[in-house]
Amino acid sequence: MHIIQSVRWSEDGLGVRIIDQRRLPGELVERDLHTLDDVTDAIRTLAVRGAPAIGIAGAMGLVVVIAPNAKLTREKLLARVRDIAAIIRATRPTGVNLAWALDRMLRCADRASGDGDTIVDALRAEATSILEEDRMMCRRIGEHGAPLLRDGARVLTHCNAGALATGGIGTALAPIYVAVESGRSVEVFVDESRPLLQGSRLTAWELTRAAIPVTVLTDGMAASLMREHGIDLCVVGADRIAANGDVANKIGTYNLAIAARYHGVPFVVAAPSSTLDPATHSGADIDIEQRGGDEVTRVGVVRTAPDGVCVYNPAFDVTPADLVSAIVTDRGIHRPPYRFG
Amino acid sequence: MHIIQSVRWSEDGLGVRIIDQRRLPGELVERDLHTLDDVTDAIRTLAVRGAPAIGIAGAMGLVVVIAPNAKLTREKLLARVRDIAAIIRATRPTGVNLAWALDRMLRCADRASGDGDTIVDALRAEATSILEEDRMMCRRIGEHGAPLLRDGARVLTHCNAGALATGGIGTALAPIYVAVESGRSVEVFVDESRPLLQGSRLTAWELTRAAIPVTVLTDGMAASLMREHGIDLCVVGADRIAANGDVANKIGTYNLAIAARYHGVPFVVAAPSSTLDPATHSGADIDIEQRGGDEVTRVGVVRTAPDGVCVYNPAFDVTPADLVSAIVTDRGIHRPPYRFG
Repeated sequence: MHIIQSVRWSEDGLGVRIIDQRRLPGELVERDLHTLDDVTDAIRTLAVRGAPAIGIAGAMGLVVVIAPNAKLTREKLLARVRDIAAIIRATRPTGVNLAWALDRMLRCADRASGDGDTIVDALRAEATSILEEDRMMCRRIGEHGAPLLRDGARVLTHCNAGALATGGIGTALAPIYVAVESGRSVEVFVDESRPLLQGSRLTAWELTRAAIPVTVLTDGMAASLMREHGIDLCVVGADRIAANGDVANKIGTYNLAIAARYHGVPFVVAAPSSTLDPATHSGADIDIEQRGGDEVTRVGVVRTAPDGVCVYNPAFDVTPADLVSAIVTDRGIHRPPYRFG
Repeated sequence: MHIIQSVRWSEDGLGVRIIDQRRLPGELVERDLHTLDDVTDAIRTLAVRGAPAIGIAGAMGLVVVIAPNAKLTREKLLARVRDIAAIIRATRPTGVNLAWALDRMLRCADRASGDGDTIVDALRAEATSILEEDRMMCRRIGEHGAPLLRDGARVLTHCNAGALATGGIGTALAPIYVAVESGRSVEVFVDESRPLLQGSRLTAWELTRAAIPVTVLTDGMAASLMREHGIDLCVVGADRIAANGDVANKIGTYNLAIAARYHGVPFVVAAPSSTLDPATHSGADIDIEQRGGDEVTRVGVVRTAPDGVCVYNPAFDVTPADLVSAIVTDRGIHRPPYRFG
């Protein structure tokens, strides 16, 4: 099975090789990022997306941009590392993983003794660790979650919490990849996930590349699919999980969870343990970002609603814990009642 | 309040004036259909859509095409009426309303005594009756349903069961129009209704023309809207209602009904009494048309899914009667348990 890798070192180690997600699903274009402009453009324009993948690309991008400066004095190099990190960080100010990865890189630079070459080597090793830890985290989620999938399972997912969003085999998709690797047959169904269509554009694409059968449906068809054709399990990712198990995830997740409950279909969340946020008591404490109306009133260049119409466009919704059958993390499977922290 | 009229006689009575729905929501283009090609193209290409509106356009189209032949002998004219009706009927072979309207026109022609002029006059009167009866039917649905809407009501609808789909003020939208006419304030929310986007393209457009506040959301956002902002009532149309009250309607309706039930929001179906089908025992007896995958994998020219992916694309779904709080028809309000026929 071929699982795509969305972010990695280029073959000569001098660039960050990404899959340009703006070109999907039309064509697979890989790009090597070398300059600061390459890195910031890729993050800002969503060529690379998914919180873990952005953090990894930011950390690795810092390395390739700083590497040509290895002959600077220690002081000057450290100053330059801080400047570049600040510029990369500003590309997605709300991205928690990006800030986390860059903070870790800055601590690494400060800690590294010796000259510029030593510091660059330390930064390269740290960025590689961030990538490898993410790969391990995905793999563990997959291994903990795979036993939930019987041979022949029909699984419904939403949005893209797959290899394209992480350094590894994804979060929600990881149990599917591991189950298929271990010889089980799994059939995947994916909501297209309006407004940004990550389900049809990205999840359908990466599963097709892995030769896993995938069927796309519009978001309004999920209940019909469950009733008419049967679904064994829903599995989705998470952006934040509150202490009580309430789950913030891509808009449409809550709709799906309600349909799953109505049909008696288990609804599973698969996410890194770093997504568990004990400081957030419940979903009521999570601010939901409202995004611009153009995402709903246009698809690419196609205008789909009249001028001046109001739009409801929250980026996320909150699924209450009582609709969540299980939460799979790299630490294991959590069952209700949830109490994190 | 200005409620648009999707099908009517042109000012000189020699054409059928339609709103070209292919141009919405971008621009309001009215076209006068005069020739047989005009009529069949308009129906085939969905310039006119919605089962009642198609039936009306077909009947009126038959009149404008046949009128120049009024000097033919009675025999020749009747033969020509049958030929033209057959050609119009073939544009949408599964459209029940179109076949019903044309059958009624044929019976009228056979019944009319006298010469060609008399027959054409009789056909014109019959087509006008079909239009006017549809207008009355919509109005009655509106009057029966309007009391369900309090002043300040927040109403969620799906797809387009409005003026654009009928000769009058619509079916699902009729109670809203009547409530607003009688001085109540109503705020409407509409699912965009993928894959064909009739909610954002058509419902949002006609409500905007009527100066009724309308907000568009994607189909996956309905549950979030109910939870975060509150909805007083869902109202949708119907393509067929079984004897037990199961409702076949545009795909996504069933999803919405489940979300409404979960949030305790009344879910109302508003449809012509001709939609009640006593011969269909329950929803299990309704065949669901599966449509081509391109509707899901493309939006206009924009490709939204990879080549070769499987697609689930039923045109309709069935909402079980136990999720339906009330069925409003031109005859009145029906409450559960439903037993039609």
